[in-house]
Amino acid sequence: MEEVAAAHSATMDRSRSDRFLEETEGGPRTLRRSDTAVDLYHPFTKTVSPRDASEAQFDQSVYRVPHLRDLADNVGRFPSPLATAVATRSLGRSFVPETETILADIMSKKDAETVSREYLRGGPREYTAFHPKSVKAAIVTCGGLCPGINTVIRELYMTLTAMYGVEEVYGVRMGYRGFYSPELSLVRLTSDWVSDIHHRGGSVLGSSRGGFDLEMIVSAIAAYGFRHVYIIGGDGTQRGAQAIFEECCQRRMCVSVVGIPKTIDNDIAIIDNSFGFVTAVEEAQRAIRAAHVEAISGYHGIGLVRLMGRHSGYISMFATLASGDVDVCLIPEIEFDLAGDCGLLSHIERLLDTKGHCVIVVAEGAGLSQMLRDDDDADEAHDASGNVKLPNVGIWLSEEIKRHFRARGREINLKYLDPSYEIRSVPPVATDTIMCTLLAQSAVHGAMAGYTGFICGVVNTHHVMIPLREIVRKGRTRVDLSSRMWHRVLASTLQPPLRNQSPRKEHDK
Amino acid sequence: MEEVAAAHSATMDRSRSDRFLEETEGGPRTLRRSDTAVDLYHPFTKTVSPRDASEAQFDQSVYRVPHLRDLADNVGRFPSPLATAVATRSLGRSFVPETETILADIMSKKDAETVSREYLRGGPREYTAFHPKSVKAAIVTCGGLCPGINTVIRELYMTLTAMYGVEEVYGVRMGYRGFYSPELSLVRLTSDWVSDIHHRGGSVLGSSRGGFDLEMIVSAIAAYGFRHVYIIGGDGTQRGAQAIFEECCQRRMCVSVVGIPKTIDNDIAIIDNSFGFVTAVEEAQRAIRAAHVEAISGYHGIGLVRLMGRHSGYISMFATLASGDVDVCLIPEIEFDLAGDCGLLSHIERLLDTKGHCVIVVAEGAGLSQMLRDDDDADEAHDASGNVKLPNVGIWLSEEIKRHFRARGREINLKYLDPSYEIRSVPPVATDTIMCTLLAQSAVHGAMAGYTGFICGVVNTHHVMIPLREIVRKGRTRVDLSSRMWHRVLASTLQPPLRNQSPRKEHDK
Amino acid sequence: MEEVAAAHSATMDRSRSDRFLEETEGGPRTLRRSDTAVDLYHPFTKTVSPRDASEAQFDQSVYRVPHLRDLADNVGRFPSPLATAVATRSLGRSFVPETETILADIMSKKDAETVSREYLRGGPREYTAFHPKSVKAAIVTCGGLCPGINTVIRELYMTLTAMYGVEEVYGVRMGYRGFYSPELSLVRLTSDWVSDIHHRGGSVLGSSRGGFDLEMIVSAIAAYGFRHVYIIGGDGTQRGAQAIFEECCQRRMCVSVVGIPKTIDNDIAIIDNSFGFVTAVEEAQRAIRAAHVEAISGYHGIGLVRLMGRHSGYISMFATLASGDVDVCLIPEIEFDLAGDCGLLSHIERLLDTKGHCVIVVAEGAGLSQMLRDDDDADEAHDASGNVKLPNVGIWLSEEIKRHFRARGREINLKYLDPSYEIRSVPPVATDTIMCTLLAQSAVHGAMAGYTGFICGVVNTHHVMIPLREIVRKGRTRVDLSSRMWHRVLASTLQPPLRNQSPRKEHDK
Amino acid sequence: MEEVAAAHSATMDRSRSDRFLEETEGGPRTLRRSDTAVDLYHPFTKTVSPRDASEAQFDQSVYRVPHLRDLADNVGRFPSPLATAVATRSLGRSFVPETETILADIMSKKDAETVSREYLRGGPREYTAFHPKSVKAAIVTCGGLCPGINTVIRELYMTLTAMYGVEEVYGVRMGYRGFYSPELSLVRLTSDWVSDIHHRGGSVLGSSRGGFDLEMIVSAIAAYGFRHVYIIGGDGTQRGAQAIFEECCQRRMCVSVVGIPKTIDNDIAIIDNSFGFVTAVEEAQRAIRAAHVEAISGYHGIGLVRLMGRHSGYISMFATLASGDVDVCLIPEIEFDLAGDCGLLSHIERLLDTKGHCVIVVAEGAGLSQMLRDDDDADEAHDASGNVKLPNVGIWLSEEIKRHFRARGREINLKYLDPSYEIRSVPPVATDTIMCTLLAQSAVHGAMAGYTGFICGVVNTHHVMIPLREIVRKGRTRVDLSSRMWHRVLASTLQPPLRNQSPRKEHDK
Repeated sequence: MEEVAAAHSATMDRSRSDRFLEETEGGPRTLRRSDTAVDLYHPFTKTVSPRDASEAQFDQSVYRVPHLRDLADNVGRFPSPLATAVATRSLGRSFVPETETILADIMSKKDAETVSREYLRGGPREYTAFHPKSVKAAIVTCGGLCPGINTVIRELYMTLTAMYGVEEVYGVRMGYRGFYSPELSLVRLTSDWVSDIHHRGGSVLGSSRGGFDLEMIVSAIAAYGFRHVYIIGGDGTQRGAQAIFEECCQRRMCVSVVGIPKTIDNDIAIIDNSFGFVTAVEEAQRAIRAAHVEAISGYHGIGLVRLMGRHSGYISMFATLASGDVDVCLIPEIEFDLAGDCGLLSHIERLLDTKGHCVIVVAEGAGLSQMLRDDDDADEAHDASGNVKLPNVGIWLSEEIKRHFRARGREINLKYLDPSYEIRSVPPVATDTIMCTLLAQSAVHGAMAGYTGFICGVVNTHHVMIPLREIVRKGRTRVDLSSRMWHRVLASTLQPPLRNQSPRKEHDK
Repeated sequence: MEEVAAAHSATMDRSRSDRFLEETEGGPRTLRRSDTAVDLYHPFTKTVSPRDASEAQFDQSVYRVPHLRDLADNVGRFPSPLATAVATRSLGRSFVPETETILADIMSKKDAETVSREYLRGGPREYTAFHPKSVKAAIVTCGGLCPGINTVIRELYMTLTAMYGVEEVYGVRMGYRGFYSPELSLVRLTSDWVSDIHHRGGSVLGSSRGGFDLEMIVSAIAAYGFRHVYIIGGDGTQRGAQAIFEECCQRRMCVSVVGIPKTIDNDIAIIDNSFGFVTAVEEAQRAIRAAHVEAISGYHGIGLVRLMGRHSGYISMFATLASGDVDVCLIPEIEFDLAGDCGLLSHIERLLDTKGHCVIVVAEGAGLSQMLRDDDDADEAHDASGNVKLPNVGIWLSEEIKRHFRARGREINLKYLDPSYEIRSVPPVATDTIMCTLLAQSAVHGAMAGYTGFICGVVNTHHVMIPLREIVRKGRTRVDLSSRMWHRVLASTLQPPLRNQSPRKEHDK
Repeated sequence: MEEVAAAHSATMDRSRSDRFLEETEGGPRTLRRSDTAVDLYHPFTKTVSPRDASEAQFDQSVYRVPHLRDLADNVGRFPSPLATAVATRSLGRSFVPETETILADIMSKKDAETVSREYLRGGPREYTAFHPKSVKAAIVTCGGLCPGINTVIRELYMTLTAMYGVEEVYGVRMGYRGFYSPELSLVRLTSDWVSDIHHRGGSVLGSSRGGFDLEMIVSAIAAYGFRHVYIIGGDGTQRGAQAIFEECCQRRMCVSVVGIPKTIDNDIAIIDNSFGFVTAVEEAQRAIRAAHVEAISGYHGIGLVRLMGRHSGYISMFATLASGDVDVCLIPEIEFDLAGDCGLLSHIERLLDTKGHCVIVVAEGAGLSQMLRDDDDADEAHDASGNVKLPNVGIWLSEEIKRHFRARGREINLKYLDPSYEIRSVPPVATDTIMCTLLAQSAVHGAMAGYTGFICGVVNTHHVMIPLREIVRKGRTRVDLSSRMWHRVLASTLQPPLRNQSPRKEHDK
Repeated sequence: MEEVAAAHSATMDRSRSDRFLEETEGGPRTLRRSDTAVDLYHPFTKTVSPRDASEAQFDQSVYRVPHLRDLADNVGRFPSPLATAVATRSLGRSFVPETETILADIMSKKDAETVSREYLRGGPREYTAFHPKSVKAAIVTCGGLCPGINTVIRELYMTLTAMYGVEEVYGVRMGYRGFYSPELSLVRLTSDWVSDIHHRGGSVLGSSRGGFDLEMIVSAIAAYGFRHVYIIGGDGTQRGAQAIFEECCQRRMCVSVVGIPKTIDNDIAIIDNSFGFVTAVEEAQRAIRAAHVEAISGYHGIGLVRLMGRHSGYISMFATLASGDVDVCLIPEIEFDLAGDCGLLSHIERLLDTKGHCVIVVAEGAGLSQMLRDDDDADEAHDASGNVKLPNVGIWLSEEIKRHFRARGREINLKYLDPSYEIRSVPPVATDTIMCTLLAQSAVHGAMAGYTGFICGVVNTHHVMIPLREIVRKGRTRVDLSSRMWHRVLASTLQPPLRNQSPRKEHDK
């Protein structure tokens, strides 16, 4: 059976691979368990002794990235094919040393003497841990759509095949479930198949939420004999990737597990920004422009745009800054009052009085506490499974605004826009295409070099590898209300705090 | 007082205008009541005798357009400034004869011997009824936004001033109410003010629904002394325009009232299509493409797009044809069943089984009878004023589909898009810009020539003038389900009738 | 051998097809030469007697479309599959009668009593001349790129297969040469292959000029056994199509040859406009807008845009009208002087004096006589083969303008744009997509019904079939300088005649 | 006279400003010359002693930014209006300390112990050197167009007026010459005037090259009484800004001179990237996509795109990476051979043999040495003034390629695109809009705080102020051929070195 044979070759079948290595490398090598026990929670910083001089120089501040040689003594060491490839002859001296790092904290305040964190720089290494012919790679995309997924898929394929000479790259269909679901067969990627996908939105492999079954997934990886597993997905998906990585370690599987973080909301810690975010901010302009045109063309026009961002307001913040036409920007990180002299409704009234119209951007996670406070029947705010079901802040807000002005007998023309899917599904802008291309190249370089359990990302404009564990540990970030960026939004919108100053009330609490 | 003086000059002040005409034309003329009574309901076809030989040749089939000389004997007759304008020297012989018409019914069936209707061709006439210096023009935009309004405004201004030498063109703010509302002052249009507006969406004059007060509007026209009133708006607005025209006739005011029909839904009778429609179909592609990407990228993905069209399905029909990716197109003109073997839900199921996904386009007025039938609490379907309040078919349909598949324990991923305002607010595509430009030129040519009570439109690719009365009488059109165009949609989507064939059931009802 | 067998079945192999027909139709039929000689130059109007009463009613004014039954007595007559197709059940009564025609001349001048030409209306017929299973169709695209080619290809495939049940559709690669060139093999079209092509620009089959070899092409058609040949191309290509059609007739081949006219220049006679034209006008806006921005942002800025149009100025004319920002529009149909008081250079000077900038649009075929007059070395204006090699009017004009102002010591900032390929290669706008879709459907309906030697086109907004011979005979059209449309351009640009009035010179001629 | 009065107040008229300051600040202050001589070439690092403790902590590695207090002892010190503004109440604690810096060199190589350079962080300071009412600001835009200029203008105006309460902001027309040219009057900016300009391309103030006359410009600044001068322009323009700054220092004028670097080529040292660059890369995709479509649709199609970049290849490099469809990327930094086995022409031949088509991107400054070597008549390569006139590499290359294949009797279809002006003139994408907004805010914050002789820029994602002198000293940057980014381009295109390895030839030289 094909599957059994495949599984065999990944974990145990040394004969074929040994024979291969014998032929190409000059002698048989067996995969050996490393002597020390692997501590999965600090697997690479504590138990593993440095293997060469350069590593000894590593500061404590550097986030080490797991490497297959931490797991076994007999990991391969092949000269990178990039050194000889005709097409890249001029690349000869371009390998990134294993000790090159990028500083994370670069704002110097002079009074605080902090040691900056550092991240390992991404890029091609002089030696690879895999012989290209032995690599069978899997790519899976999970979660909601985000511009650029197809570019990542295409460039993973191109870098693996055209640069490294890998011959088998498979696409897993419809997210994690595609590893094991009988109705979803793998797609063998070919040059033709990927040739045009970077100009399309969505995910050509299909994507879905859920479907994470650790046991079935890792067994499938073993059965198919995948050596590289590239996992494109968000927060939850990367937690899954970390679990897969850990399980592969436990099983002593010679597999590089690499995450490529995907979240249109841009709320991943550490990295400058995630792919697709720039496109989302760009596309959001279209909706804001429509809201602005409706607002200025209508009698007491109000344009209200709901943008993505369940937990963080990054898209709303940047879209507001980019627009220049927004009067109020509401994000999950801020609290605001509806009623009262300093509340939102009074502010809208003042805007109608002075400018004649106004444009409001609201992130989907904004106003939660206000909505719940407002809700007479708060028990309904849970769905059948008991999860908190977020009410739609855009619809709630437009109802509240209409009610307010109706009560005052004042005519308004409110237009509500919710462009979510139109934003998610477009092909990426050039900036994101480049980022996707480089992330994918970086992922393959890292995996070929034997690194595993990491994600690729950009820190202070440089491509780095970050341990999956760090990303999982940090979780989501949120807009820092004391940051310059948020202040710039306030400066651009001229929006007041929108809180009624009632010290007594505060005191009561 | 300026206003009184203005009103004076429009209706009675013959001294200044006579003096002017005397100087330029060679003799005093007084505005005289024509001998016969004006029959407003057939004002121009019955009571008015032909004034020159050419008119006698007019077939009964030609829709005559009201002319100021039908109203009074002393309407001016000036050689068109276009004949001598430096800028248009080469235009010399380009005037359109008063008797040139365009055939309306051009499909010949051989078996039926019908006489085609004919419409008066638009374009510059050799003689104008107004001396340019005596013209004070008003432009008003009413109703919802539609791509191209600003182009019409700009070109009305440009044609009046640059081609004819008119000096005073005013914009009325925020629709009909702007004629009389004290808080909305008129805008005096200038070359600078209009220079860049054609690249923007919306209406720079502002637009609103309602505000129609015949008495106040006509009095304002008289008071300001407007000689041309250009009214850009939809169905209801043009009914208002017809009323204004009739009232001006009754008051013997020397005013040309011209309508420029505006409806993004394209449901105006007689004309090929209304401005903004082509842009709407173009922009709708964006939403359909997003729905398609979501559908093919998701596990059992369903993309559902609600498009404009309360009474007719033209936008949905053309957007479906243009997309090539739509599986089901639901319009107000068709009836469909949800449940049953031949119903929509079964069809969606079959599409998921065979293609794995589907894309549905639904016009906002579709499914009304189904929704009401469905509604347990049908009394709520009226708003406070007693009007039928249309439920949102997009939300209803997405709930029904989700409920259906939930009941069958089948996972789907439905994404619902409602791009209405993003479509309405964009600047026009080139095709619409050209149409707006020509409609505006045509409107001014007609008004300068003394025609009134008409709208401008395109019939069989030719620009014509159509009596307002005809437009009002015909009302809205709907998609003809036996037309080739609808059949092409069915051919393109391959959608079945979506009706359960149960004669008995029908009978039961 | 496959090819011989294929050729056999198309022209002679009656056994298989007869057997097939026998089974499905009830009796053997042999293809018989019709009794009268076929007069190819009037093949269908003179020698063929009417076959049923309805035809007798055909006016002399109707352009008859060749039909296979004019060629042979035993052409098939099958009930259209559309009558029973599940997907189109509701289409039952939607067949277009064979005698339905569309009037061509619909402007009524009252004084001239002309009989209008009429064209046969396109659309599905109740009976087809081919049994779907016997149809093997070829599609070929020739000449330069034009937005929409891929949509035509896709919809030909979809209509043939999904609507009629045809099973074999082939794409011919790289134009006419693909029929016989050994290095270019045919592409068997599949549902997958065409699924996404309508969103891409260019031609997925490839296209090229030249390569027309009548003998080799018709022999290939015979050898492959094609029954339908769809030829997408311009002026020269359709002359080739007419030759192929005539040769097929001579050889008594049972083949429908259908042309789909493609010219971005829109200079095809008879039809309203050709596909891709609307997109070209739209895309040209981008270049004109750029030229306008450069012009107004620069010190004495001049924006000069060269647009397509070697023989006619349609794109320039419509792009100018759509822009609203163009000051001068130069097309091949007009003569203009450079120097002199009324020449172009003086006009530019006046524009810089008054507006501070100007925008000029020039069609690539404009100014030819001026350039040649200007050329000291006119002999060079021929290429190696002796053809007239058009000098680049954009470069010539920009040099002339620069020289003029340099000579006067006046600083200008001229920016020259030539967006040709960016315009040709984009995907079509929705309007063109719809036109392409309907043209393709119309082509297939016509071919299935047995019509041949025709092109599909739109006349006065209706889809019709026009004899190829008429199109070839009429050749290219040019802008009518006395038309309303050209006058509208002059009205919009306010450009003077740009000719120095020298009666003596005129007299000399 | 108004002008004299204005000049008076800027340099000498202490009475009014003193009186003002007296009223608002509590006492008269005179502008006094500082005690030490100002050394203009190291004006602020050597001669000025630290004024407060915090400054003493400044590392030698920090690039100090000139400040007016270095020039005079009696520079104002006002609490920032941002501290109290209603609209920004929540901004209270958001001032950036004067000692906050950003690290420039953040790649740590472990072996080299380098001290990083640091730049002063931009942002609002707690104290301003100017009282808002005393500020009269000038904005000038110089050089070629670049997406985002209007956004910078608008945001400078908005920040000065809405945030700081400045009342007089002027626009200088058509570049440096607008300071003194009698035909170009200043524009007084208003809220209305700037309201919509950020959605337009180009420069609403107009821009031009040249016109730099130091004496006349500084005298005009003095005469008009400008206190802030914002200079938006490229390389040469910023050298001018440095000269203006130095001259103002020499004249002891209390003027903040701030540069905002503008170069679409992105070849400014130190900063991450300049505004407009992201838009340029985005827009370039359009041309590359067109070239790709033409290439794959044609028989042996070659798409050749010339992009901007006279001295550096950044746009070509990033546009190539973003496209994914480019086969060869030629930039000024690389040498390449045309002929020979490893030359460009042979590589194109191989691409046509294998892929059937190819796409080439060439920066306008690429291939210079090859073209000159090629030029038989090299003397012509100078213009009338003796400057080297760059030949057009795109035209040269397309001729060379055509000649090569013609000589081999091989048919190709080469399409050449040159989209320069279409790229420069578009409105900015959202990313650039945000960058422009923040650069403008940063410029105003710096100027209000009393900094001068600096430019605003982004270093490692942070907004900083960089001494103009550093920018001028560093000059233009070029693509580092040993950088990872260039290697990524090679990896993406798979293009070989394109040099014939002929040690002998090299030796000969």
